[in-house]
Amino acid sequence: MIEGEEEVGSDNLEKFLLENKSKLDADVILISDTGLSNLDNPTLTVGLRGLSYMEVKVTGPNRDLHSGIYGGALANPINILSDMISSLIDDTGRITIPGFYNDVIEIDKSKRESIEKISKFDDEKFKDSLGLRKTKGEEGYTTLERKSIRPTLDVNGIWGGYSGEGSKTVIPSEASAKISMRLVPNQNWEKVSELFTNHIKKIVPDSVSVQVSTHHGGNPYLTPEGFKGYESAIKAYKDSFGIDPIPQKDGGSIPIVPMFESILGIKTVLMGFGLDSDAIHSPDENYGVRNFFIGIDTIQNFYKHFGN
Amino acid sequence: MIEGEEEVGSDNLEKFLLENKSKLDADVILISDTGLSNLDNPTLTVGLRGLSYMEVKVTGPNRDLHSGIYGGALANPINILSDMISSLIDDTGRITIPGFYNDVIEIDKSKRESIEKISKFDDEKFKDSLGLRKTKGEEGYTTLERKSIRPTLDVNGIWGGYSGEGSKTVIPSEASAKISMRLVPNQNWEKVSELFTNHIKKIVPDSVSVQVSTHHGGNPYLTPEGFKGYESAIKAYKDSFGIDPIPQKDGGSIPIVPMFESILGIKTVLMGFGLDSDAIHSPDENYGVRNFFIGIDTIQNFYKHFGN
Repeated sequence: MIEGEEEVGSDNLEKFLLENKSKLDADVILISDTGLSNLDNPTLTVGLRGLSYMEVKVTGPNRDLHSGIYGGALANPINILSDMISSLIDDTGRITIPGFYNDVIEIDKSKRESIEKISKFDDEKFKDSLGLRKTKGEEGYTTLERKSIRPTLDVNGIWGGYSGEGSKTVIPSEASAKISMRLVPNQNWEKVSELFTNHIKKIVPDSVSVQVSTHHGGNPYLTPEGFKGYESAIKAYKDSFGIDPIPQKDGGSIPIVPMFESILGIKTVLMGFGLDSDAIHSPDENYGVRNFFIGIDTIQNFYKHFGN
Repeated sequence: MIEGEEEVGSDNLEKFLLENKSKLDADVILISDTGLSNLDNPTLTVGLRGLSYMEVKVTGPNRDLHSGIYGGALANPINILSDMISSLIDDTGRITIPGFYNDVIEIDKSKRESIEKISKFDDEKFKDSLGLRKTKGEEGYTTLERKSIRPTLDVNGIWGGYSGEGSKTVIPSEASAKISMRLVPNQNWEKVSELFTNHIKKIVPDSVSVQVSTHHGGNPYLTPEGFKGYESAIKAYKDSFGIDPIPQKDGGSIPIVPMFESILGIKTVLMGFGLDSDAIHSPDENYGVRNFFIGIDTIQNFYKHFGN
């Protein structure tokens, strides 16, 4: 199956699955849409975060205004939007939406330490590869944990007023932002989208009006323990890479994975071969030829082991 | 003189004035770039706010990143920019930049009350004309005061990340905002621009880098008491409108007015005939034919009285 709508929310796949359920019977689903740490010491994805992607539009005056003549006398939609965004994460990096963490499964300290140990995640390398002076995130968690087992909130886009060259002295009528949250087991994306919507409507000052819309979402996913597909994947990685893969949760979201499970009742093994340096969703996105061939080899080995 | 660069900071006028000082000798300067309350009960502008227009660019990672794979582990430039913008104005509507109010001349309570009384400013009409549920601004001041005799800070534009249709799960490398401040006597725009720059550089977290640049600015202006040009203007308004004009400070900025005074030593009388409903700096900007003709008439009367 080639799914061409993954990046826009797979709007039509659910209907297709429901209508063709009997034809889509299978022993296992294998998806190549994840990455691995590196080709010498590969990781194997055992979980995905969920996603809730929202848009917020703040409207103030009924038209753009001259900021000299009107400035100071009314709420500026950009300033109000900034205030609301700023209030969504507190000083310790926690998301302030009431109930947001209610369903989050906390992972044992000892299990977290053992994951950290086997993952061999290198904070310095991570910072250097992104040109960062320092990392930043929820207090009490490591960088690897922050981007895999913890939920997040990020602004993905913001716009309002004049953004051209030079200056324009305007108070815009509107300002908007795209805001997404990554979710972890057992959060439900529809519930989180509703919590977000209700919270924004509660905190918005009455000097402006606000409109909140849901773009799309998906639930988090965990590879179940003792799953035959997963056991076969480990063997296949060992055959192709010559070493046991390191199990690791991926911070990204593939909403069709939990969708396959809930509609078809089939579990998914996640065998992707991309690298951090592929610059995914960024200019000059790329994929190495070596990754392409080792991927083919590993998947062939998977079929062999799973068939046995 | 026709000045075509007023909206972009009059970059070349200062040099022109300095080079042609002797040729530009005049008794008075009359500028038609302000407005009046309405044609039945006109106001006459007796002061202008100054302007300091800045741009702030926040840079995080060295490229745009996938918000699933990286989200939670690093500072998002849009979130950081929102935090900083939000912190610039406190809950009482005061600007938090240290030293910002140091040079502001506070106007006597009794003088403020008498201005308010003669201005006949109507808060309800103001709200209705802009489609606002309520006004908002610095505590302790009226709407008219907030937009004329008090300094302000407004975001005039903000941008970063994805702003197209639908969703893109990205953490942008950069986010920017255009931020301007309106100034009142005796604030100096170059000093305020420096205070702003230093403050932003002080509050920016070390998880990102920041660049602050100055677009342009101008000092506030006050029509001096006992100025012959002003006395003649009052008589001219009375001739043309049949009523004494109400003196009122305008919230906008015309940086060339203080420039004329400092270089040529000539004072300016501000006789403009626009209305609030002209939608200045907004779509469908317009100027009434009646305003055009009453403006011609009033200016003719000004020449007559000033000449006598």
